[in-house]
Amino acid sequence: MLEFRRDPVIGRWVIISTERGLRPNDFHSATLPRSEALCPFCPGREHLTTPEIYALRQPNTAANAPGWTLRVIPNKFPALQIEGHLRQRADGIYDKMNGVGAHEVIVETPEHFLTLSDLPDHHVCEILMAYRSRILDLQNDHRFRYVMIFKNHGIAAGASLSHPHSQLIATPIIPKRVSEELSGAQAYYSYKDRCVFCDVINQEMDDRTRVIEQNDSFLAISPYAPRCPFETWILPRTHQAFFEQTRNGEMLHLAQILLSVLKRLNVVLENPPYNILIHNSPFDYKHPEAYHWHIEIMPRSTWIAGFEWGTGFYINPTPPEEAAEFLRIARI
Amino acid sequence: MLEFRRDPVIGRWVIISTERGLRPNDFHSATLPRSEALCPFCPGREHLTTPEIYALRQPNTAANAPGWTLRVIPNKFPALQIEGHLRQRADGIYDKMNGVGAHEVIVETPEHFLTLSDLPDHHVCEILMAYRSRILDLQNDHRFRYVMIFKNHGIAAGASLSHPHSQLIATPIIPKRVSEELSGAQAYYSYKDRCVFCDVINQEMDDRTRVIEQNDSFLAISPYAPRCPFETWILPRTHQAFFEQTRNGEMLHLAQILLSVLKRLNVVLENPPYNILIHNSPFDYKHPEAYHWHIEIMPRSTWIAGFEWGTGFYINPTPPEEAAEFLRIARI
Repeated sequence: MLEFRRDPVIGRWVIISTERGLRPNDFHSATLPRSEALCPFCPGREHLTTPEIYALRQPNTAANAPGWTLRVIPNKFPALQIEGHLRQRADGIYDKMNGVGAHEVIVETPEHFLTLSDLPDHHVCEILMAYRSRILDLQNDHRFRYVMIFKNHGIAAGASLSHPHSQLIATPIIPKRVSEELSGAQAYYSYKDRCVFCDVINQEMDDRTRVIEQNDSFLAISPYAPRCPFETWILPRTHQAFFEQTRNGEMLHLAQILLSVLKRLNVVLENPPYNILIHNSPFDYKHPEAYHWHIEIMPRSTWIAGFEWGTGFYINPTPPEEAAEFLRIARI
Repeated sequence: MLEFRRDPVIGRWVIISTERGLRPNDFHSATLPRSEALCPFCPGREHLTTPEIYALRQPNTAANAPGWTLRVIPNKFPALQIEGHLRQRADGIYDKMNGVGAHEVIVETPEHFLTLSDLPDHHVCEILMAYRSRILDLQNDHRFRYVMIFKNHGIAAGASLSHPHSQLIATPIIPKRVSEELSGAQAYYSYKDRCVFCDVINQEMDDRTRVIEQNDSFLAISPYAPRCPFETWILPRTHQAFFEQTRNGEMLHLAQILLSVLKRLNVVLENPPYNILIHNSPFDYKHPEAYHWHIEIMPRSTWIAGFEWGTGFYINPTPPEEAAEFLRIARI
């Protein structure tokens, strides 16, 4: 079964995806990352993955063979299926549609034991450019409206394999959290005639207490109302609605500030698990003046997530001014 | 610092609460439950807690001394403070107000090593009646608009003490997730002239594939679009907007079905961590015809929560029809 189902009260779409073949016994504890000896993402085991969609390779190396520095492959256990049509339909009072979408894995490096923050800035820049390239390609598939790019680092953050990788999901619907963010930004714009994120950037640049770091193109801050301790946002300093319009020079600046922020988090929180999520505009978004793409980084700490998940209330014991101070002074 | 801060884009209020005194070192790993030897909720250590607000006691025992079977106390490390006024104000482009609210702990039993599902039904009924009593009392404080009652069981679900307890938070604002649910129910009602939850109950009672159990007053189901494997809802079978209007006879039925569902989850998922949350109407809610109070139980599994938290996408590998079947046939 691979289907989108809509909660009849909240309107939230959930993906029911049994392809991963999990049964009750699989939920007792977190999946353990596989050791290098069994890792399907390591060089020499390309035959264990689906064929690559995109790769950076040394000259004269064959596709799906060693010699790559970065590979993008369809997820072998996809949450969505790439073929077919949505076929939206009723199920009594409920609504459902087929689970059509793309689910890809970006293998960030051939080195099993490195983490994203160990890579040089030009390599991280190539990962970001791979994201951009995949978004631009998926925009040609007219069934899709949104691409979500995310990285789960560490078991507590949802990673099931330890080899450094990120993921991409392209969907025919705009996720509820994304549309809430777009609506909020549009409401602000229609009232103020200004982008809310640009206003945030201006106030933070003046105030400085929540600024972690900046370079020519980007600003890293602890946001004013963080959901968890050390939540961090990276925003382009000038207005830009689409991540995929980032130019090569800016992409290197983005790689540099992302690396620097991850190193700061590693020092202050001693290599925490984390999620990275690119908040981007949907394809063909009609209000690019109102929305400002950015990256959100959420370090994970079990009890905080537990509280929020259970109650819908975010209670954060670390003021962002204090988090920013810790991160600013961290020796990296 | 104890303050509500509003995210300027999404409009979500976050509580920044430093009273718990956590510093970066406290976030490296989950808090370990204290052993019985140090547990402040055990009988004989009443002096370690704040004075009790409510208790069930044997005749001729003094308040804040042994002899109780259930106690309600203010949380010693509250996320909110009970005194003061909201004082809503601007912080540049941002919005904030004082962190006024009530945060109480319901110590469910004097027995440190039991869990909620080990208690007899009449004792669970008394816990539910304590919730009801606290809601009715807090309604007299006109600063408050909502009471959230929840239980975090197990470290992975956010519990920091292993002694069986649940919690209550009364707030001057309606949490975003609650208002989304109310809006969704009101939109359905204004279109159909029927409560969406009553429609769900009717369809589930006819269809049976997602029904786990029922008794004279309540129905337990796997919801149509569950966010996580084995998410379970318990709903009153007839329309009722307010949990606190539940009568004593119905409360015993609620205790019975809640116990039975928890035992089923324990069998199928081998004693999982879980969150229980009572979804209730706000005080003085103006559309009681549209909303139907209910209980949501979310068993926790790390990677699922990680995925959702990071991406805003719920991907669930267990169809609710399959979960309901596992739970129905569990031997309890």
